[in-house]
Amino acid sequence: MLGVSTDEQYMREALKQAAYAAQEGEIPVGAVVVSRGRIIARAYNQTERLQDVTAHAEMLAITAAANCLGAKYLQDCTLYVTLEPCPMCAGALYWSQLSRLVWGAPDEKRGFARMGTPMLHPKTELKEGVLAAESVALLNEFFLKLRKNGR
Amino acid sequence: MLGVSTDEQYMREALKQAAYAAQEGEIPVGAVVVSRGRIIARAYNQTERLQDVTAHAEMLAITAAANCLGAKYLQDCTLYVTLEPCPMCAGALYWSQLSRLVWGAPDEKRGFARMGTPMLHPKTELKEGVLAAESVALLNEFFLKLRKNGR
Repeated sequence: MLGVSTDEQYMREALKQAAYAAQEGEIPVGAVVVSRGRIIARAYNQTERLQDVTAHAEMLAITAAANCLGAKYLQDCTLYVTLEPCPMCAGALYWSQLSRLVWGAPDEKRGFARMGTPMLHPKTELKEGVLAAESVALLNEFFLKLRKNGR
Repeated sequence: MLGVSTDEQYMREALKQAAYAAQEGEIPVGAVVVSRGRIIARAYNQTERLQDVTAHAEMLAITAAANCLGAKYLQDCTLYVTLEPCPMCAGALYWSQLSRLVWGAPDEKRGFARMGTPMLHPKTELKEGVLAAESVALLNEFFLKLRKNGR
């Protein structure tokens, strides 16, 4: 695609995952893990379906990527996620020794980057704000619908 | 048991879990979740067996407890863990709205409490240092064996 960066292409895949979450009544957050130019894991938030607060998109993607690689460290991997990770997910990414983290929209309330503590592994490169507007639009639409339904 | 506190009794159960971890070559950390006087979840660190950095004792215990309760919030629950939780696990405990957290040994390197950021839910009561010496002994024995085996 002319003029579209690789990061944007992969973030679009993460946004597709987020849209699946919204369809299932979950807060729309999606993630993919890319290793050597190949998507090795796709996941979306499933905290409601699984009734499990640990089932964030990033956590499921980390587990799926490790299963795919047969190794617990996500070296040479980039994780794309549509929303800035929370401290739980940042803590998991620390342990994974992820090479690169790319996120979309900022999370003003629970984003790890505003906690004032370095939470990621020193090896992990960061990029933020990729297709942030698309992620925010999905989230806003979801919460607007929730309010309309009086939930 | 005369003179033994309830917290110590439950921490002994968490220590049993930690001992299972050691038997399987995992860093010995164990956890149990207690709800209304009953143990509803038991777990130990399985990061090696599952090749999954998210498989800390606390994470597995949170998921198991939520499954048992059929609800994602661990209200009226106490989680006992033999080692101070890391930021990932503290972040998960935040989302769970756990009522009470009791831990054994401090984790000077990766414990959440030394990160300088409040990470738990404001509702969560804390108690630390319960049977800490027993937990430290298990950890020391484990790492001594690792070094002897040259790993």
